[in-house]
Amino acid sequence: MSKTLVIGAAGMIGRKLVQALAQEELIQHDVVPFTGASFVSDLSAPGEAEKLLASRPQLIFHLAAVVSGEAEADFDKGYRVNLEGTQRLFAAIRKENYRPRVVFTSSIAVFGAPFPEAIDDEFLSAPLTSYGTQKAIGELLLSDYSRRGFMDGVGIRLPTICVRPGKPNKAASGFFSGIIREPLAGQEAVLPVPETVRHWFASPRAAVGFLLHAARIDTGQLGARRNLSMPGISATVAEQIEALRKVAGDKVAQRIRREPDATIQRIVEGWPRNFDAQRALALGFRADASFEDIIRIHIEDELQKKPEPRPGCA
Amino acid sequence: MSKTLVIGAAGMIGRKLVQALAQEELIQHDVVPFTGASFVSDLSAPGEAEKLLASRPQLIFHLAAVVSGEAEADFDKGYRVNLEGTQRLFAAIRKENYRPRVVFTSSIAVFGAPFPEAIDDEFLSAPLTSYGTQKAIGELLLSDYSRRGFMDGVGIRLPTICVRPGKPNKAASGFFSGIIREPLAGQEAVLPVPETVRHWFASPRAAVGFLLHAARIDTGQLGARRNLSMPGISATVAEQIEALRKVAGDKVAQRIRREPDATIQRIVEGWPRNFDAQRALALGFRADASFEDIIRIHIEDELQKKPEPRPGCA
Repeated sequence: MSKTLVIGAAGMIGRKLVQALAQEELIQHDVVPFTGASFVSDLSAPGEAEKLLASRPQLIFHLAAVVSGEAEADFDKGYRVNLEGTQRLFAAIRKENYRPRVVFTSSIAVFGAPFPEAIDDEFLSAPLTSYGTQKAIGELLLSDYSRRGFMDGVGIRLPTICVRPGKPNKAASGFFSGIIREPLAGQEAVLPVPETVRHWFASPRAAVGFLLHAARIDTGQLGARRNLSMPGISATVAEQIEALRKVAGDKVAQRIRREPDATIQRIVEGWPRNFDAQRALALGFRADASFEDIIRIHIEDELQKKPEPRPGCA
Repeated sequence: MSKTLVIGAAGMIGRKLVQALAQEELIQHDVVPFTGASFVSDLSAPGEAEKLLASRPQLIFHLAAVVSGEAEADFDKGYRVNLEGTQRLFAAIRKENYRPRVVFTSSIAVFGAPFPEAIDDEFLSAPLTSYGTQKAIGELLLSDYSRRGFMDGVGIRLPTICVRPGKPNKAASGFFSGIIREPLAGQEAVLPVPETVRHWFASPRAAVGFLLHAARIDTGQLGARRNLSMPGISATVAEQIEALRKVAGDKVAQRIRREPDATIQRIVEGWPRNFDAQRALALGFRADASFEDIIRIHIEDELQKKPEPRPGCA
């Protein structure tokens, strides 16, 4: 049976992807130790990428990245992990010479303001963060390595994932999840931007769906342009809050405290608000149905979780 | 007096730029030995970029590159020189911590088909060559390094330079110059593509003008988007030949032999044909007036060259 390599398997999306791939023979990698790890190593260190490819996995998910806030705060670390790590992985794949399918998680951070009303499939990548720059370079390398026949790559630009479960990470986009997640958990959330701010979202479930679909599509349909903006839901913060009210009631929606933060506001102003993701839709990628659905998915997948069935207890 | 560094000073554009900068205190670099060289070294070798910056040149022209045909034929060399060389230069500039103006010659090869009627300033970089990929990555790095305050960068996407003097280089675009240059020199030229092929041109004189203008402009006007498609002349091969006929007569224009080459045709099909270079025009970059003028500039600058005045002979 052919193997599947998941790089960044300990991350939020990585863990959910691994669950969805439970029937496959997996090689799981991350830089931090985690349950189920096959390799724990720094992908940007010389020789490490080669080790991951020793069994020639036919399918590789490359999810590993330092998030936007951290890549902005630590220039060297961001470039080392997000750019050099990707370069080393692609170079190692080329050296192995077996043309695996590579699914690379890019980001809408490859786009920078000023924006058109909706970003179409021909809009330029002019990122306004180091993270976005590193992802845009990863996309270019993936295209060139695919064109040259070294890999069969698909880059998918994920919307901001919402509702992100667990604790906030260092991403400046954290509040978009926080204002849903915290109130649902009975806690107060801080909203640092005006309610008129519009952004582009997908649930973790939709994101895993994108990854699995990218692993299966006929890349002949992609032509030379192997990086795709994923479909999503465009919603203002006001629409997010209204959806929360509809799904969970007034009392929950009132647990949001307005506390403007000029730094976060300025960062968010440079972010995409809306897309016209025609290519991805035509290729069969499917977004969530509504922001209310995004909230319901969070409740189903995170808050109403049934305990894992134990073997032998059926 | 502040110094100016020219990297790639032995190349065709480099030599003309150095002539135009004759009044400045220059540091001239190339990988091949040449008259006037300050440094001859491999920019992609560790430690070499640092040496070029020792005197902290306030203005840096980075023209050094392996051309498109060679970057396609030799994957490793193209990435080493065009990407790693640029990365090392930018990293060394960051380390020096003095924010020089950096003028980077990018290329219309950052764009790949399918194209709109004319490529505007918001069209995506989806290159179809490794050379175009390397230039597109250089652009992204230049933007991010400028945004972070490590340099004050301007990337200029040069049209195909025509008429390129001297012998053909390894660029697949060589025939666009050859069909003008060779007939004017009394020699037969080979045309490997149909006369309907349309392409985007600037004279060497215009290219040097772009470089000098990029060194002087107020980069505050650029905002975050520091890479600009230069203006040029859009002409079909038929229009090129007609211009040659007008400038030099029927007999000269008849020295072109049609010899279709499927490989070159296929490469050229992926190349830009026409631009709407509004931003560059608004910033004061100026193209040649017509393709006839491009031919006249070649005749003036290359074929009617007066001998250099010798000191003491005035």
